[in-house]
Amino acid sequence: VLTCGLSIPDPGQREALMQLEASMQTGGQVVLTDAERQLDALLFKMKQEETARTDFPPAMHFFRARDLIRTSPIFGLLQKMPKGGALHVHDFSMVDAEWLVKNATYRPHCYMCCTDSRSVRFIFSSQQPKPLPRCSSWVLLENLRDKMINATDLDNSILRNLTLFTDQDPEAVYPSQDEVWDRFEDKFLALWGLVTYALVFRDYYYQGLTQFYTDNVMYLELRALLPEVYELDGSTHNRVWALKTYQDITRQFMATHSGFFGTRIIVTIHRGVNASVMTEAVEEAMKLKKDFPDFMAGFDMVGREDRGRPLWYFRDALSLPVESGLPLPFFFHAGETDLEGTEVDQNLLDALLLNTSRIGHGFALLHHPVAKDLSRKRGVAVEVCPISNQVLKLVKDLRNHPAAVLMSENHPVVISSDDPGMFGTSGLSYDFYEAFVGLGGIKSHIGSLKQLAMNSIRYSSLTSEQQNKAMAEWQRRWNKFVSENVF
Amino acid sequence: VLTCGLSIPDPGQREALMQLEASMQTGGQVVLTDAERQLDALLFKMKQEETARTDFPPAMHFFRARDLIRTSPIFGLLQKMPKGGALHVHDFSMVDAEWLVKNATYRPHCYMCCTDSRSVRFIFSSQQPKPLPRCSSWVLLENLRDKMINATDLDNSILRNLTLFTDQDPEAVYPSQDEVWDRFEDKFLALWGLVTYALVFRDYYYQGLTQFYTDNVMYLELRALLPEVYELDGSTHNRVWALKTYQDITRQFMATHSGFFGTRIIVTIHRGVNASVMTEAVEEAMKLKKDFPDFMAGFDMVGREDRGRPLWYFRDALSLPVESGLPLPFFFHAGETDLEGTEVDQNLLDALLLNTSRIGHGFALLHHPVAKDLSRKRGVAVEVCPISNQVLKLVKDLRNHPAAVLMSENHPVVISSDDPGMFGTSGLSYDFYEAFVGLGGIKSHIGSLKQLAMNSIRYSSLTSEQQNKAMAEWQRRWNKFVSENVF
Ligand SMILES: [Zn+2]
Ligand SMILES: [Zn+2]
Repeated sequence: VLTCGLSIPDPGQREALMQLEASMQTGGQVVLTDAERQLDALLFKMKQEETARTDFPPAMHFFRARDLIRTSPIFGLLQKMPKGGALHVHDFSMVDAEWLVKNATYRPHCYMCCTDSRSVRFIFSSQQPKPLPRCSSWVLLENLRDKMINATDLDNSILRNLTLFTDQDPEAVYPSQDEVWDRFEDKFLALWGLVTYALVFRDYYYQGLTQFYTDNVMYLELRALLPEVYELDGSTHNRVWALKTYQDITRQFMATHSGFFGTRIIVTIHRGVNASVMTEAVEEAMKLKKDFPDFMAGFDMVGREDRGRPLWYFRDALSLPVESGLPLPFFFHAGETDLEGTEVDQNLLDALLLNTSRIGHGFALLHHPVAKDLSRKRGVAVEVCPISNQVLKLVKDLRNHPAAVLMSENHPVVISSDDPGMFGTSGLSYDFYEAFVGLGGIKSHIGSLKQLAMNSIRYSSLTSEQQNKAMAEWQRRWNKFVSENVF
Repeated sequence: VLTCGLSIPDPGQREALMQLEASMQTGGQVVLTDAERQLDALLFKMKQEETARTDFPPAMHFFRARDLIRTSPIFGLLQKMPKGGALHVHDFSMVDAEWLVKNATYRPHCYMCCTDSRSVRFIFSSQQPKPLPRCSSWVLLENLRDKMINATDLDNSILRNLTLFTDQDPEAVYPSQDEVWDRFEDKFLALWGLVTYALVFRDYYYQGLTQFYTDNVMYLELRALLPEVYELDGSTHNRVWALKTYQDITRQFMATHSGFFGTRIIVTIHRGVNASVMTEAVEEAMKLKKDFPDFMAGFDMVGREDRGRPLWYFRDALSLPVESGLPLPFFFHAGETDLEGTEVDQNLLDALLLNTSRIGHGFALLHHPVAKDLSRKRGVAVEVCPISNQVLKLVKDLRNHPAAVLMSENHPVVISSDDPGMFGTSGLSYDFYEAFVGLGGIKSHIGSLKQLAMNSIRYSSLTSEQQNKAMAEWQRRWNKFVSENVF
């Protein structure tokens, strides 16, 4: 098929090559039902209209594009679509920041102080908390709001400290990768005191499940730091408590939300630590995995790769599970960089050599043909988070995102949202929109969406038995979605 | 080599995989001499320093980065480096716009008028020219300048009309692809009256050869419109005259510039024409190829792909050479688009089906695994013009340019400059800088540069005998370059 001599191009051969190429993409071999084909025709029409616009959302910064996407009929459909699982989401960015402001900061005993770098910190306490270094004195928000005629300005200014999303010019607010990462990490510090308070910790997670469930996501693999959680009197709970709490709330949520398949936890640690702290963390994770074999999926590191130590630096710690026969699956962030050829850029290969189960981001994968080949052959899926990569300034126009290439080749990929609360998204639909319209271009279709959803089950950490159950439930919901949306 | 079991990563195996990957890139299998290795160590050090800067030039718009690049020691070396041939350059953008202002517009009989869209038009004439529609009355520049104390402002304003380069914020001046293409095409109209005047036509081309030669480029394949060239009295010359003139001047230039290997012409026509005009153009090109078999290389179309007709629309015209047995090699621009899945996006496959000898840009090639495979297997090189793609807004950060991936896989590529005069570059060195530092990252090395230069001979339209001669001359100059720059 791939040769053609010196002759007038044969339209039949051309058609065959075009079909061959179309069949190679994500979803290119999915067999469609009549109803799916009808829905696809509708989607194709919508996408053509969307592509003809001068303000094409995937070419724009998401912060500018969000309102356009919200009103897009494709987005409306994607919200209703059963998307399977969200496999790359972080614990303290599951929920939109508005919820934190309107719910968490309105609870009693919530104190706030302003840092000298114009950020904020929070703490819940039954008595006046001890002052923080480089922070104003603590103010009880209840008292502060009582003195105001209207708390809107205060609430808005709190909101700005809890999310990267802004309605100002995002290029001006975040001019560089360094700048946006600094702000990103500072905003995590700001919300830390809110979300690690035991009552909020529980409700935040429950609210997160609700938002994903509402967005028609049926399963979560949550990267969780399992921090020390505190009570009003200053007493604290350990990591086991946090994990146990997630497990309890998940069960409680599943009992009242039909079709929700659950959550599994990927325990994370910041990559800024040294080798001995990492060794302890891995040992602790091995123990947690032993004690929560079903609920805990595995282990990962968080924080900016370019600034942290490479995986290879931690190789001794990361070899402990295999050496000691206590298996601990890895789900490494790797290749979330555009620094080609540096030590950090080796993380992709090293993640694979360390038998990672999936690759978080893998933005640099195309620059590494050996790693790419390994990822494909071993079925190590790449967790693609388009909006995250754009907001964190790895790529401007999402049509240039490397996952567009991965999708052209049906490389194993899943779509996820990384930190929806930080990026002003919710659930998975915004990232599915960018993947379907931006990465996929005109050529991706209902089969692509179907396969992306199925990939999220197929490449999850669930056992094959669980996967079969989840897939059956997903298929039931998918059929319902298709039949309800074919007009 | 590509498998590794569940075990502690073996540093030896890791090293082997890293080496394998390094060997797969452009230049990865080039065997280096001791002197080359020494020069490479120097280059590596320079590149590490360059990469550590916060204002990393390949991540910036070229218009902002140009001064940084100019003072870069890597750039200094690249200027001296024998780069082989420039295989993708357009006739009326070979020379910097300053030359047009300072030389062409200062010649006698040069009239200028201002269009109502605030652009300018020029004509040389022995008498007052007839007025142009939508243009002010013609002013003789000689007279205008005589009346001024200082012509600097006038010259600067003319300059701004002849190049896209600007020292203002390029994102603000050219906010969208549509906008930058409109300005691009208008600036061509502005310089048209200058460069199609017979005396300027000759000197412009000679100056172009001089600038490429000075930049250590030894050979050119020039995409040329072969326009109607006019004399002071309004009489005109046809395409044969233009081609003949290029040939004469090339010979004259070669006689006085040792080691310059010549120019071959790729005749071009604007893709905006209809099928019957295209048929005539192809027929004329076939005749020219017969009459100038050595000097003329082949045929191509110019103008923005997204706005023009796709290659497939012209398939009958483009099949004429094969049908009639009068061979006409094609060098099609294809895939200079980010509109994935449109008709225009099929140009890549169609160019290959029409047996193109090379692909101009191929920016979308990674989205087309079948076309990519064909291009690789048939040795159809991609002409990569990084600065052009950035200025015309296909990609912002050049580290995300798809040719970074092509170079990771040693896909057949050559580096070229497309329209140096329009983009504020000169010769090939700026684009080599972006390719070496931006696309190649830390991992590209002296072997990559060597192979890129050799590719430009290997994938030229020269016969193998000519290629061997050119390669020998290039090697002689290369050895000299290496020995002179190892300190
Ligand atoms: Zn993440
Ligand atoms: Zn071109």
